[in-house]
Amino acid sequence: MKELSLNKSFGGFQGVHCHESKVCGCDMTFSVYIPPQAEGGRCPVLWYLSGLTCTHANVTDKGEFRRFAAEYGLVVVCPDTSPRGDHVADEKDNWQLGQGAGFYVDATESPYDRHYKMYTYITEELQDLVVKEFPVDRDRQGLCGHSMGGHGALVMALRNGDRYKSCSAFAPIVSPSTADWSRPALRAYLGEDESKWREWDACSLIEDGKRFPALLVDQGDADSFLREGLRPHLLEAACEKSGIPLHLRMQPGYDHSYYFIASFIEDHMAWHGGLLSGL
Amino acid sequence: MKELSLNKSFGGFQGVHCHESKVCGCDMTFSVYIPPQAEGGRCPVLWYLSGLTCTHANVTDKGEFRRFAAEYGLVVVCPDTSPRGDHVADEKDNWQLGQGAGFYVDATESPYDRHYKMYTYITEELQDLVVKEFPVDRDRQGLCGHSMGGHGALVMALRNGDRYKSCSAFAPIVSPSTADWSRPALRAYLGEDESKWREWDACSLIEDGKRFPALLVDQGDADSFLREGLRPHLLEAACEKSGIPLHLRMQPGYDHSYYFIASFIEDHMAWHGGLLSGL
Repeated sequence: MKELSLNKSFGGFQGVHCHESKVCGCDMTFSVYIPPQAEGGRCPVLWYLSGLTCTHANVTDKGEFRRFAAEYGLVVVCPDTSPRGDHVADEKDNWQLGQGAGFYVDATESPYDRHYKMYTYITEELQDLVVKEFPVDRDRQGLCGHSMGGHGALVMALRNGDRYKSCSAFAPIVSPSTADWSRPALRAYLGEDESKWREWDACSLIEDGKRFPALLVDQGDADSFLREGLRPHLLEAACEKSGIPLHLRMQPGYDHSYYFIASFIEDHMAWHGGLLSGL
Repeated sequence: MKELSLNKSFGGFQGVHCHESKVCGCDMTFSVYIPPQAEGGRCPVLWYLSGLTCTHANVTDKGEFRRFAAEYGLVVVCPDTSPRGDHVADEKDNWQLGQGAGFYVDATESPYDRHYKMYTYITEELQDLVVKEFPVDRDRQGLCGHSMGGHGALVMALRNGDRYKSCSAFAPIVSPSTADWSRPALRAYLGEDESKWREWDACSLIEDGKRFPALLVDQGDADSFLREGLRPHLLEAACEKSGIPLHLRMQPGYDHSYYFIASFIEDHMAWHGGLLSGL
């Protein structure tokens, strides 16, 4: 692992690191914020998964999470959104498929099956690296994400309720298998058999019996992707039917940008801080 | 004036705007945050001046000021750091002169005297535009800046104590006329006669009798520019000799980055909020 930068921030340290990923078959960059509380021992870790077109840098620059990570004593890890490199399959003119659009799945279809293993990368390889290299407590992990990353956070939480103790999302894609803007990506990564898409779809996972103790979701009502791509009412219906407590907050006038995320990050950090500190 | 973007943030609105500047002879871009309090009437305005290489965008993305602008009811205007355009004189390989390095002076020397009038642009032309177009109170203006922008804020405050009611800075260049890294720029903009540089140098202005009610300055002690370019002890000595109350806080371990600014922006916004709200 190579440290690309390290800056003191809110009493802790914001680092950016690079490592050779075996799972993805390429170099991967991620950021880690270490709060001041880590001087006293291992801290809970919050995984922040970003949306389409993003790298680790967008939320690291614009998310305004460090003030509250330092307040609640949370390590925050921000991975990239896909494998990267000239040797990695890509569709350069399509922002919804290929590099920057990994959708947090393990691809099974050529040519994407060679590198696009973001689910295993984050839940296993990067987790093990982070636990080994940083003062984090493996037993206190939470997930947060935005848009495509909200989808990733929900799917990882529902499939691994024993590992992740808290989950929240900003404007998540709650049902990528039924949204026009994500179906081409799932087809490219997972193949024609749509029954195999269900384990990568939060609403389908809940329908198929997966549960999580509670979810916090913020959604701007001026988000241009709300009606076609995001459709939080589908998650609301699935949670209501299955008894999962969902705190869905429609935020009037807010769009899909980091200005929206930063405006409500305080509540998300408090949500994770409460759940992860109490363990 | 043309609105380039507008996003709801912390209950207010972050805008980015472009206009044709007569003073600079080019199109200029700036950002304006309007806090929710503006619905009730005109608000105080804080001018945030950025450092070398920056545009309006750096602090707008990374400054984390909106949370507190919304708390204290401050409009925040972030101008660019120089005139811009293919027809504007520049030294492309020199980050300390030309575009991105206007040093907030009114240049008198060719070729810079055609466009490099950032002092008059900010204190007059952009001020008049902002007062006309946004709900700001002309009688409650404050200045804040970083590095070269800290120099700009101090100089504008000292020269216009009747107009600006509050001033603070992050890691300011307190004496550009005596620092090796800024002397070439002052020579290029203002000419060989160094006596004419004094009105663009905070320490010289104080020596020459200019005063301000109180100053807040934060400086990281791990800032790589501290000893050569910034040298806050010169401002400390000038303020002590002249009786200007200077709150100079050396922040251990912090560098020159926006991670440093964001870590202490809360105190600066409170400083300006207190001084400007009480008027």
